[in-house]
Amino acid sequence: MTMRDSHKVVYLDNAATTPVRKEVLEAMKPYFSEKYGNPSSLHQKGAEAKQAIEDSRKVVANILDCTHDEIIFTSGGTESTNLAIKGFALANKHKGNHIITQKTEHHAVLEPCKWLEKHHGFSVTYLNVDEFGLVNPKDVEKAITDKTILVSIMFANNEIGTIQPIREIAEICIGNNVVLHCDACQAAGYYDLEVHELGTDLLTLNGSKIYGPKGIGVLYAKRGMDIVPLIHGGEQEKGLRAGTENVPAIVGLAKALELATKERNAEAKRLMTLRDNLIRGLLKIPQVKLNGHLIKRLPNNVDVLFSGVEGEAIVFMLSEKGICASTGSACSSKHLTPSHVLLAIGRTPEEAHGSLRLTLGRETTEKDIDYVLKVMPKVVQKLRDMSPVWKANAKNQ
Amino acid sequence: MTMRDSHKVVYLDNAATTPVRKEVLEAMKPYFSEKYGNPSSLHQKGAEAKQAIEDSRKVVANILDCTHDEIIFTSGGTESTNLAIKGFALANKHKGNHIITQKTEHHAVLEPCKWLEKHHGFSVTYLNVDEFGLVNPKDVEKAITDKTILVSIMFANNEIGTIQPIREIAEICIGNNVVLHCDACQAAGYYDLEVHELGTDLLTLNGSKIYGPKGIGVLYAKRGMDIVPLIHGGEQEKGLRAGTENVPAIVGLAKALELATKERNAEAKRLMTLRDNLIRGLLKIPQVKLNGHLIKRLPNNVDVLFSGVEGEAIVFMLSEKGICASTGSACSSKHLTPSHVLLAIGRTPEEAHGSLRLTLGRETTEKDIDYVLKVMPKVVQKLRDMSPVWKANAKNQ
Repeated sequence: MTMRDSHKVVYLDNAATTPVRKEVLEAMKPYFSEKYGNPSSLHQKGAEAKQAIEDSRKVVANILDCTHDEIIFTSGGTESTNLAIKGFALANKHKGNHIITQKTEHHAVLEPCKWLEKHHGFSVTYLNVDEFGLVNPKDVEKAITDKTILVSIMFANNEIGTIQPIREIAEICIGNNVVLHCDACQAAGYYDLEVHELGTDLLTLNGSKIYGPKGIGVLYAKRGMDIVPLIHGGEQEKGLRAGTENVPAIVGLAKALELATKERNAEAKRLMTLRDNLIRGLLKIPQVKLNGHLIKRLPNNVDVLFSGVEGEAIVFMLSEKGICASTGSACSSKHLTPSHVLLAIGRTPEEAHGSLRLTLGRETTEKDIDYVLKVMPKVVQKLRDMSPVWKANAKNQ
Repeated sequence: MTMRDSHKVVYLDNAATTPVRKEVLEAMKPYFSEKYGNPSSLHQKGAEAKQAIEDSRKVVANILDCTHDEIIFTSGGTESTNLAIKGFALANKHKGNHIITQKTEHHAVLEPCKWLEKHHGFSVTYLNVDEFGLVNPKDVEKAITDKTILVSIMFANNEIGTIQPIREIAEICIGNNVVLHCDACQAAGYYDLEVHELGTDLLTLNGSKIYGPKGIGVLYAKRGMDIVPLIHGGEQEKGLRAGTENVPAIVGLAKALELATKERNAEAKRLMTLRDNLIRGLLKIPQVKLNGHLIKRLPNNVDVLFSGVEGEAIVFMLSEKGICASTGSACSSKHLTPSHVLLAIGRTPEEAHGSLRLTLGRETTEKDIDYVLKVMPKVVQKLRDMSPVWKANAKNQ
C-alpha cells in the first residue's frame, strides 16, 4: 500500500458537514454580486431574486412531493427543528401539552423539548430505544394520551446511523390525530423524502449535510398547520420567518437537493459497499463493537467503540494522519459528558467514551477505506499501550 | 447627456441590500468547498473552520471596541434584533416588564415588542418622533419608569435616513440603569460603532447592508448580560445561538465590516455630495418634499414624496428605465398600508403613498445621479398626467 499524499485529507466526518459541491457553488455564484437584489424589492433586481427563491422552492417542493407554499426556508436544520417543535407546540398548546420524542434525538430536538417543559408547562415523553437505537412504534402508540399534540422522531440518527420506522410511526400518528415531525437532515441525501409517502406533517432538512451551503434549512409544514414564528419582523416566508431571504443559499440548497436526489440510489449503493468493508475491517481489531444497527443504517455511517481507548484521543491521532473523524455528533463533540445516544443504546459511560464515528461521503474512495484500515489498528494499539488501565487488565487476563 | 447602456442598472436601493463586494466573496470562497469543516469538529478541518470564525469574531470585536466573547453571530439583522429584544426581555422579566422604543423602528424591533406585549405581559412605550423623524432624548427619560428594563432606538432610520442622538439616549439609559439596544444595520457602513463611545449594551449589525453576504448578522451583547436563546440545540455561540456556524458568511461579514470601516470616512463624504446633488435636483420638481432631516441623515439616503403620484408606480416606471428604487423599507414594500415611518413624521396616508426612497452606494456615480435627475421629472409628469385627481386639482388651481 502506498503512503497518502501529505496534503490529501481523508474526510470521514460527512455527518458533521459536507463540502459544497462544485455545481452548487456555481449555481449560487450569480446571487452574491450580480443578482443580489432583496426579494422584497419591487424593481427588476428584486424580481429576479424573488424568482430565484420561488424557483428553488418549487424544486424542493417537487422533491418532497408537496406544494410550494408548504416549504419554509430557515437558516439551518436547528432553526427548522426549533420552528417545528416550539412553533407548533406554542401555537397548539390549547389542544394539549404533551409531546413524544425519543432519547436519541439530536440536541436540536431535545433542547426545544426541555425548554417547553421548563417554561411553557409541557410534558415530554422521551422514549427508550433498543440496543440498536431503534424506537418501537408500539411504544409511540402506548405513550399517546389525549393531551398529545406532537411526536418528533428523526429519520436517521446522526451518531449511530440507525434508521427509524417513520412510516409505521406516521400511521400511528395519523390514526391518533397527532402531528408528526421528522428531522431528516442526515437522511436527505440517501432516502426518498416524499412527505405523503412518509406520512409526516413537519419535516426538517438542511443544506450543509447534502453538499449544499451552511446557514440554510427547510421546514416542510403541511398546509393549514398553525405555527408561531421564532423570528418576528417582516413578512417573509408567509410571516413565519422574518428577515431578508438568503438568496444564494436558498438557490444552493435547492441545487444540492436536486443533485442528491438524482444520484441517491447509485451513491447509496456505492457507499454501502464501502461502509460494510470498513465495518468488517474495523471489527477485526480486538475488543471493538459496532454501535447501531447492521442493516437499518445510513449508507455512509460507521460507528464503533474500542475498549480501553478514549475516542477523542483516536480523533486527534487520526487527524495527524490526515483522517477526519468524530467521536459523535459534532454539535456536542466538545463536551466531556458521554454521548446521550450511546448511553440510550445501553453502552456504559466508559464504553461511550471510546466511540468513534466515521461518516463516508461523495469523495470517499476504496483507497481511503484501505488507508483507514491500515492506520486504525496501529492507532488503537498505540493508545492502548499508553493506557495503564488497559495494560493492567491485559496482564490479569 | 448620453443614453444609458441598455444592460446597465442604476441600483439605488442599497438600504434594501447591497451586492457582495469582490474582496468579500474572495475571502469567503475557500470556506465553501475547501475549508468546509464544522467548527465543532475536533479534527484539522474543524480546527481551521473554528479558527476562521474566531479570527472573524476578533475583527468584528476590534471594530466595535469590545471583547470577542461579546460578539454573537446570527443569521441576520432581524434575528439579532429578535435575540436582543426578546432574548433580553424574557431573561430579565423579573426586573421589570416595560420597554421603550420609537414609532419609526424597523419591523424587526416593532414586531418582537408587540409579541412581548401580547404574549408575555410586557408594556411597550412607542415614542413619537418629530417632523424630521428625530426622537427627543428627554422623551426617553420621561418614559422611564421603575419597571423599564430596555430601551431600543435605532442608529439610523432605514426609510428616511434620520440619525438618532444615540449617545445622549445612552447617557440617559446609563443614568437610569436601563439597558440600551441599538439597531445599527443601516449605519454600519458610515458611522463609528465603538460601543463604549456610543454607550450601547446591545447592538445589531448585518452583512447584507455593508456589501457582505446575506444570511449573517451580529449581536454585540455586553459581557454579563442575561439573554435567553431563540434557537435551542448545540452549544454554539456560548449556547446563545444553536446550529452549525455559517463559516463563509461569518468570514464575509468580518471582511465587509473591515473594508467598510477603512473606507467609511471617504465614502461617506463622496456619497453626501452625490446625495445632496440628488436632493437639490429632485426638489426642483414641482410639489415634492424631502422626508427626514437635511443634515442628520445617512450619507446615502434620499427619500422624497411627490404629490399626486403613487410611489409604487414610480418604482415600476423607474425599473423599466433601469433605475432600482424603493417606496420605503423593502421588508414592507409589498404592503398597501402606508409606511408607519412616514405617518409618524406627520405625512398623511395619501402623501405617504407618494414617497420614493433612493439609497446610494459604492457603485453610484455622478453620472447615475445625472441620469436619475434627467429621467425623474418625466416619470413624475407622466404619472401625474395619468392621474384624474391630479388633473382635476390642477384645473381648479
